[in-house]
Amino acid sequence: MREFLLFSRQGYTSGNFRNLKEARLDLVAHCLTSSFFLSHALRKDVVFHIILSGPPNPPIYIKVVGEELYNVRSDEETWGRILRTVLNKEKHEGFYLEKKSFQGVVKDLTSEGKRFLVLEEKGEDILKCKLKGNEVFVLGDFIGLPKKEEGFVLRNGEKISLGKKAYLAADCITILNFVMDKFYKF
Amino acid sequence: MREFLLFSRQGYTSGNFRNLKEARLDLVAHCLTSSFFLSHALRKDVVFHIILSGPPNPPIYIKVVGEELYNVRSDEETWGRILRTVLNKEKHEGFYLEKKSFQGVVKDLTSEGKRFLVLEEKGEDILKCKLKGNEVFVLGDFIGLPKKEEGFVLRNGEKISLGKKAYLAADCITILNFVMDKFYKF
Repeated sequence: MREFLLFSRQGYTSGNFRNLKEARLDLVAHCLTSSFFLSHALRKDVVFHIILSGPPNPPIYIKVVGEELYNVRSDEETWGRILRTVLNKEKHEGFYLEKKSFQGVVKDLTSEGKRFLVLEEKGEDILKCKLKGNEVFVLGDFIGLPKKEEGFVLRNGEKISLGKKAYLAADCITILNFVMDKFYKF
Repeated sequence: MREFLLFSRQGYTSGNFRNLKEARLDLVAHCLTSSFFLSHALRKDVVFHIILSGPPNPPIYIKVVGEELYNVRSDEETWGRILRTVLNKEKHEGFYLEKKSFQGVVKDLTSEGKRFLVLEEKGEDILKCKLKGNEVFVLGDFIGLPKKEEGFVLRNGEKISLGKKAYLAADCITILNFVMDKFYKF
């Protein structure tokens, strides 16, 4: 299983948004595409965790389970419709919403035996790490992970790096999926 | 310099489209983001070539020059506005439109000393290739490159592979940029 955890500082936490960009959910939509989409297939082996910390009702935790995904497309409009549905507390296959904080989610995943790898340019080179398959890759949005949350998650994790360049969060996920496709069997 | 060439079979060839998805230009928009965007910077060293072959006026060739890009964002709405502008024969910094075919573009790039690497799952492993810096990476849309065009471009090129999985075109570009960031100095 591959797991990603995105901390979105400004992602809107209600379904009454006008459009994805204003709601700061466009980055979330791009990450959903990178997490789950191959050219003609969905990645069933991915779980994507999202913490939304924007107004009006933070924090909101959304868990997205690749194995259960259905009725999705890789465009912003489709993800926007689904996120609106889920934030309105209605159902969409594979999406689960809870009122839970970043630290709460980290605690729960820790108790499931997960280990956290936080993406940062100065971390250990991803190509030199030995992944075991129980990792959760932690990403911030374009502002980055708040120091407090970073400190918390690093109690049970470490920093890894994709290189000297700072990539978009969605591209980080694409690259991590590629590295696991290429070098690992999970 | 890094160069990508996308052949879009169905990409609409006029500015009077209603939205990106209907115009089959959403894939083009995603590829533009992957080509040029880092987290807080643009890649100045990328040129992205697009051939649009959809109705009503194919073929249209659009060249996008990273060094001249200005006033861009990574969301679909912004790329849609820019593509509409350019397809209406109006100017946007870094974008150049011409009435030229895929084979015409390939001929011109060949005469500039370029060599073509066509992405296909059965090609040579990208991590075993030795890139020289004069490559143009050729991508099809979700249907793939037409056989005739593939045959033509392979006269001066070869097939390369990112692995056994078939990635979205935009993700192929993200991965190629990552590989060049990681292993090459161009």
